[in-house]
Amino acid sequence: MSVPLAIVLPVAAAPPSLADNTADLDRLKAALSAALPTELAGLPLRIPFSRMALLAAQFRAAGFKGWAVAHNLPGQLELTDFLAEEPQQLPGIALDLGSTHLEASLIDLRSGKTLAPRRTALNQQVAYGADILTRIHCATKEDGQHQLQQAAAASINGLITQLCQENAVPPEAIRAAVIAGNTTMSHLLLGLSPYHLCREPYTPLFNAADPFLAAEIGVKLHPQAMLWLLPSRGSYFGGDLIAGILATGIDQAEQPAMLIDVGTNAEVVLGGKDWLIACAGAAGPALEGGVARMGMRAAPGAIEQVSIDREHWRLTWRSIADAPPVGICGSGLIDLAAELYLARIIDLRGKFQTEFAGQSEGQRNVVQERLRQCGEELAFVVTDGVAVSQTDLDAMMRSKAAMYAILETLTAQVGLSFEELERIHVAGAFGEHISPRHAIILGMLPDVPLTVFNPVGNTSLAGAEQLLLDHTLWTRTQAVCRKITYLELNVNQDFMIRFSGSRFIPHTDPGRFPSVPDFSRRRE
Amino acid sequence: MSVPLAIVLPVAAAPPSLADNTADLDRLKAALSAALPTELAGLPLRIPFSRMALLAAQFRAAGFKGWAVAHNLPGQLELTDFLAEEPQQLPGIALDLGSTHLEASLIDLRSGKTLAPRRTALNQQVAYGADILTRIHCATKEDGQHQLQQAAAASINGLITQLCQENAVPPEAIRAAVIAGNTTMSHLLLGLSPYHLCREPYTPLFNAADPFLAAEIGVKLHPQAMLWLLPSRGSYFGGDLIAGILATGIDQAEQPAMLIDVGTNAEVVLGGKDWLIACAGAAGPALEGGVARMGMRAAPGAIEQVSIDREHWRLTWRSIADAPPVGICGSGLIDLAAELYLARIIDLRGKFQTEFAGQSEGQRNVVQERLRQCGEELAFVVTDGVAVSQTDLDAMMRSKAAMYAILETLTAQVGLSFEELERIHVAGAFGEHISPRHAIILGMLPDVPLTVFNPVGNTSLAGAEQLLLDHTLWTRTQAVCRKITYLELNVNQDFMIRFSGSRFIPHTDPGRFPSVPDFSRRRE
Repeated sequence: MSVPLAIVLPVAAAPPSLADNTADLDRLKAALSAALPTELAGLPLRIPFSRMALLAAQFRAAGFKGWAVAHNLPGQLELTDFLAEEPQQLPGIALDLGSTHLEASLIDLRSGKTLAPRRTALNQQVAYGADILTRIHCATKEDGQHQLQQAAAASINGLITQLCQENAVPPEAIRAAVIAGNTTMSHLLLGLSPYHLCREPYTPLFNAADPFLAAEIGVKLHPQAMLWLLPSRGSYFGGDLIAGILATGIDQAEQPAMLIDVGTNAEVVLGGKDWLIACAGAAGPALEGGVARMGMRAAPGAIEQVSIDREHWRLTWRSIADAPPVGICGSGLIDLAAELYLARIIDLRGKFQTEFAGQSEGQRNVVQERLRQCGEELAFVVTDGVAVSQTDLDAMMRSKAAMYAILETLTAQVGLSFEELERIHVAGAFGEHISPRHAIILGMLPDVPLTVFNPVGNTSLAGAEQLLLDHTLWTRTQAVCRKITYLELNVNQDFMIRFSGSRFIPHTDPGRFPSVPDFSRRRE
Repeated sequence: MSVPLAIVLPVAAAPPSLADNTADLDRLKAALSAALPTELAGLPLRIPFSRMALLAAQFRAAGFKGWAVAHNLPGQLELTDFLAEEPQQLPGIALDLGSTHLEASLIDLRSGKTLAPRRTALNQQVAYGADILTRIHCATKEDGQHQLQQAAAASINGLITQLCQENAVPPEAIRAAVIAGNTTMSHLLLGLSPYHLCREPYTPLFNAADPFLAAEIGVKLHPQAMLWLLPSRGSYFGGDLIAGILATGIDQAEQPAMLIDVGTNAEVVLGGKDWLIACAGAAGPALEGGVARMGMRAAPGAIEQVSIDREHWRLTWRSIADAPPVGICGSGLIDLAAELYLARIIDLRGKFQTEFAGQSEGQRNVVQERLRQCGEELAFVVTDGVAVSQTDLDAMMRSKAAMYAILETLTAQVGLSFEELERIHVAGAFGEHISPRHAIILGMLPDVPLTVFNPVGNTSLAGAEQLLLDHTLWTRTQAVCRKITYLELNVNQDFMIRFSGSRFIPHTDPGRFPSVPDFSRRRE
């Protein structure tokens, strides 16, 4: 069984006697050393100065028997607490620090069990700017960096308080925290300047922070709780992705596998146990609801599925949580565009078709009923109050083109074809809600068997949870960081060429998508 | 060459570029790793959270070239500072924290050179009680522990300020401190309860503290300066003695050697590279000036040498620093007693002789001139204002008997004779001022060739200095602590018997002191 980042172990020592008057703290250390699991045996055991008096007093008061709490720091153990009674649990927190939302889970480090369902909260930094660039700019202003740090800490504390209240766990019982976020979020959380992150040559101030006291950044847990921040691999490849690699295990895969995480950027990792290559590109906004006028995050009320029955020409949709529809999220947009393409209501370029031969009556009805002039442009009405305009579709087309070009550039870089990928993990809300079939029709995802695609949810949080429960993963994250080759797309000519070739449905070269109906030759 | 506890090394890195956009702090770590001496290569390199922003800013401002300061912590390096310019020196402080006096030296960790002569200061804890037991009692009173901690820190800060001012070194330039003190002093310095130290079974709260920030106990150096406290081996064998073992190297000696350190107690270590045995006993007070009425510490004005020319019956003396005489220190008292014995003015029991046959005229003159009735007892006047009474002599006799009994018990315990000792190191002011010949005459030190005795000065401070300049000695101190067998004299029957046998000059069994005139048979 793996050993978590913090442990609590029963220790027992004989009371001092003339025959054995070892000092109290040396006695405690010896008792803990004897109780350590094999994996930790022989590690240097340290007691922080600030805990010496308390530990000695507690150990003596308990009659030299009880429970010792220690942290598994890199290469050493830190003995920080002594409890007279066996604690029911040893809570830890895993947290995904997104630029818009945080998601966290409370986990018992003793049993490895999740103490509560995951919870999300808004990142209060949103008040200082919706996107990363605005926040980096804000950080350069007087006190901006400090305010953003405080906002991040407040968001984290708020979410932890909520989780703790719901589960009757006092926050000061939490002994370890693992946080995964992108590189900018990591800098802002630590109150460190993100200035150079967005300026050539895009150099982070740090990639790998050594574990530190959560209290040092205002995160309120046990006073000795350590905070482990997942390391980044450059300005555009953050700890959230490193966590994703842990969660999907592609760094240990025998056969090449891929991880696609779509947030503000599309971030993609490809590789296996011997090598890893990664890149990121701006494929996300239209898919995350950031660009489409009616677009929204995958949240209750977001239309996430759309289909057009081409026999009876009926359009059906489903919203998340079956809530009244208030917008459309990335997966809904992809479904809609693919269905509109199959219904030939949009053409290869993703443009609304207003007239062409061979239309059936049902098809004409759909167009007449739902395609409306909206200001200067056409828009397709999915349902009352939710319409997708040509501008929205154009943005989506750019995103899908970017996504496919990214995947193609990355695989081509290592001389692989998509068919050689054993697994394509699709992370996040995107992976959870997307219909890979529709994405293939659009030419956004490669035309491989649907079973290759694996929706994996929030891998940033899942990786953080895994690290919480297995201290050896800290070393593994460092190995992953060293192993990753990062491919810079901004200066990549091949990528630009591939991007242009991908701006059709499914592609300029329809031969790459044999399973998708090719309307280009049949077009009048 | 040995590597000190803190190092400063030139580091240089290429500035960030698109081809190499490693994060600033990772770049700095890599540059330092490349610059490390072989002994430190491969050690984990940590940056404390509180130094991340500063280090990154300084490294970048200096153009990614300059000087990195790191601490050699056990099993890891801590990178704490970056300097644009080469520092002239990297000062460290070594300090002997005595219960009455502190002695310290300022050392350049780069060159290994002492920056200033050693300086001493009064331990301000004296205001709370002259002896250890009073201070332990004081620590149990409300706020007493805190006040004693503050007094220790204030004494240390005062002495450091003095040393720094004399040498134009700002205290905040000091990067490492090594402090050696007895077990009670160590507890009081750290603000930890000494309550159990003097209560059966005499259990310290701690023996070995892990290095911590000097700032944590109010010692004002560089904010990141680490404080290394020499470990103790039980309540009665402190870090001062462990330092003495380092300084004399008896833990590495091929042939058995002995270290005698006389302070409030006489503390004795015997051994070599394979084993060490130690004990402590109350032999000190009379020798340290704590009991004799005119007694004083070895300080300017203390009579430290006395001789009586037995041809012309002239008494001569010398005071320390040739200052006007104000008292008599341990070595002066030993000289005087031995000379009085040889002059047959005191008898085998150390009692003043007022009448016996065979006195020469000169001898009678000395007695008439200097032996006076002083209240209810006799006193011998060394010079105007400095007299030694029968009570003083009695205390001295007890001390000398205790000392010899300690040495005899310890050597007997391991089956050695004094003749088998290659070296007897005599530490402290006692070792510096004592005349081994006179001590042998009294039967205080064993009757071995005078060349065996080696005065070694303040070995507590010398050991602290050595650790400052060689980080591997930290591990050695721990090995020494594990290796020492501590012999408890309080419950030792043999010791009590030997103590009784030693209460004569030179001994009940004069055969043990063949070089000393034996007056017992010639006595009328």
